[in-house]
Amino acid sequence: MRMRDTNLPVDSKRISETIKGLARITEPDRPYTRRAFTPLFLEGRAFLERQFKAAGLETRIDAAGNLIGRRKGRRSGLGTIMLGSHSDTVPEGGRFDGIVGVACALEVAQALADADIRLDHDLEVVDFLAEEVSLFGVSCIGSRGMAGLLPDGWLSRTHDDVTLRQAIVEVGGDPSRLASQKRSDIKAFLELHIEQGPVLETETCDIGVVTAIAGITRIEIVIDGQADHAGTTPMGCRRDALVAAARLVVAIEKLAIELAKGEGHFTATVGEFSIEPNAANVVPSRARLLIDARAELRPAMERFLREVTDLADWMAQATGVGIATPKIVSDNHPTPGDPLVLRLLDKACDARGASHRRMASGAGHDTAWMARISRAAMIFVACRDGRSHTPDEWAETDDITLGAAVLLHAVMDLDGELQKPIQETV
Amino acid sequence: MRMRDTNLPVDSKRISETIKGLARITEPDRPYTRRAFTPLFLEGRAFLERQFKAAGLETRIDAAGNLIGRRKGRRSGLGTIMLGSHSDTVPEGGRFDGIVGVACALEVAQALADADIRLDHDLEVVDFLAEEVSLFGVSCIGSRGMAGLLPDGWLSRTHDDVTLRQAIVEVGGDPSRLASQKRSDIKAFLELHIEQGPVLETETCDIGVVTAIAGITRIEIVIDGQADHAGTTPMGCRRDALVAAARLVVAIEKLAIELAKGEGHFTATVGEFSIEPNAANVVPSRARLLIDARAELRPAMERFLREVTDLADWMAQATGVGIATPKIVSDNHPTPGDPLVLRLLDKACDARGASHRRMASGAGHDTAWMARISRAAMIFVACRDGRSHTPDEWAETDDITLGAAVLLHAVMDLDGELQKPIQETV
Repeated sequence: MRMRDTNLPVDSKRISETIKGLARITEPDRPYTRRAFTPLFLEGRAFLERQFKAAGLETRIDAAGNLIGRRKGRRSGLGTIMLGSHSDTVPEGGRFDGIVGVACALEVAQALADADIRLDHDLEVVDFLAEEVSLFGVSCIGSRGMAGLLPDGWLSRTHDDVTLRQAIVEVGGDPSRLASQKRSDIKAFLELHIEQGPVLETETCDIGVVTAIAGITRIEIVIDGQADHAGTTPMGCRRDALVAAARLVVAIEKLAIELAKGEGHFTATVGEFSIEPNAANVVPSRARLLIDARAELRPAMERFLREVTDLADWMAQATGVGIATPKIVSDNHPTPGDPLVLRLLDKACDARGASHRRMASGAGHDTAWMARISRAAMIFVACRDGRSHTPDEWAETDDITLGAAVLLHAVMDLDGELQKPIQETV
Repeated sequence: MRMRDTNLPVDSKRISETIKGLARITEPDRPYTRRAFTPLFLEGRAFLERQFKAAGLETRIDAAGNLIGRRKGRRSGLGTIMLGSHSDTVPEGGRFDGIVGVACALEVAQALADADIRLDHDLEVVDFLAEEVSLFGVSCIGSRGMAGLLPDGWLSRTHDDVTLRQAIVEVGGDPSRLASQKRSDIKAFLELHIEQGPVLETETCDIGVVTAIAGITRIEIVIDGQADHAGTTPMGCRRDALVAAARLVVAIEKLAIELAKGEGHFTATVGEFSIEPNAANVVPSRARLLIDARAELRPAMERFLREVTDLADWMAQATGVGIATPKIVSDNHPTPGDPLVLRLLDKACDARGASHRRMASGAGHDTAWMARISRAAMIFVACRDGRSHTPDEWAETDDITLGAAVLLHAVMDLDGELQKPIQETV
């Protein structure tokens, strides 16, 4: 029997109001849509800015277009503890992804203000710009920018004849100052997020303490067979690209299941799949598949890459089709959570009576970029049926509120722990 | 060692000139394209009509828009022996598919004229209208029309605001007379065609005597899985529509290979295949596949249909996806060749020193419609690498000429055999 703290120092109503307030700011015909750079996004930002100010935060937009609310610390020179996530959505997304992270960060600041507690460190609440794949085809624009890792070339990308550079200016940022504003003062970054998977709900567990954000590797395989007449070409005389591709899909799933049984989170998904000429009476001449593989531990990904290459070779020989060496389209390594922060998060869960488990994030998050310039870690709260990026996305206010309380506890702990010599903390 | 007749009563040069003459009438930028109903098609028809006339044939366009050349018989009341195929092509098709059948039919008439031989039956050479899938999305328009089997509704189909009815009028037909012109006088129909498969070439066999035109059944299977986040949904918690569909593709091929080992020609091909949402980071929620199955013998098709239905059921249970009962989109039974005509074709091959084998046609042909109103059968000649419907399509003039000689021999035999009482012929 779990003993939840029913007298939390955070206010579930306020959190809920922030979430509901943003949910109202959506394209009316396709809830919940509030894509970065759109007028609705700016309306959401204006709403958030009012809330930030009401919580006593000093607000600003940084060079990368992130909305930041600041509560000055007693010893500002120590640097900043930052909390937050993102308020933008995918098209027809949900009310919680990203948003709960901003709402809980805001609630931590508000709770500190209510209790008249001032940290030694500065506290910043952030709404990152464009975490989701944006109109410009790229994601995590704000967090990459804050970390000085936004590729320069991206600023020239266009949507409707507007460059990303101009679009960042229009939300209040200043790309010309990205390099000079690269942050080096952030001592710890924490992000609360819905799990986007079924594990916490299935295990009736309150909090996921995120050990790592999985690395994502995308691999393209193109299979060249031969277009033949479907009626006149005997079964034994074919080089059917679809049959070879289908056998690869089955083998890739089998391999992924095996790797998922090992240490650390592992998934592999063939999400894109197409054939040519895709005509009823023609043996398929070509198939293309794109694998999305995610690993908490890099060695698992490296084994996967080796085995997929072997599989492709073997399949080409076994079926007579041509398969070029699988092409790695993108390859990001995993981001481990900071050990000190993870330890304090476990401790905070215990203090708040929250059941918790260590787990990896299969999805990418702003935290992966913040981890390049700061200690960083995430916590997850459960979402219904593991669904996200859909209007059905749902998280219980009680679960979110407990997450905010854990966040508050961890922040207060961190404020002290970060001042200790390194050897004591790790 | 085969002993080919090198002193054939047919003229390879004339056959070759007809084929080359039509090949010159093509869209210049994408040879070989001469689609039915286009100006180029009418140009090809005008060329053929001149050739027909030069061979002493009386020409006309029938109600269904077929070009017919007639050599009157000595005892016209006996009815007609008809030979032919089609001169239209698919886009970027070849120089031989259909065309060799018209050229050889013409050569038979010319050879009879040269030798001053008049059959007892009337002899007709036909160029059927629109055997290939036409601009109106349907095929075998001329042969269906001649057999009184052109669906009435098809006449209202449109292309570029022109109805099929109007288009038939424009090539010289008269759809209002389709019913009254339904043919009942045709006693035998013969079509020579390239094999469109690799069997004759592989076996170095001159002539395929076609036992049946395979029945074609198209079956659609739709698989409903669940769209989930590709990174956060553990491998064991998925209902991946693509993985289930891929397993079906593999199982369908296995089943087809097994059926092809049995009696009669059998193929099954998944030619159309697509998934939704087809996004890199989403577990596929839906897959659709269309099977093209072809059987020389109906029981094989019925077994295939039963087993595919069982497979779909089993796969749904094994993988947790939803699969509706496979839907039969179209279902045409096989058309057996006429036993008398087949026997005479074998005999004609032997007489001409042509090696021959019985085989089925996996492709559809005008003969399938003519068989509804007449004795009918086909012969095949080899084509290179089994390729067709491509500019690379190729058949050797010697092979085609031997086919014409076999055709001539069979026609002369038929002219007598058709006059015998039924019990003697079958």
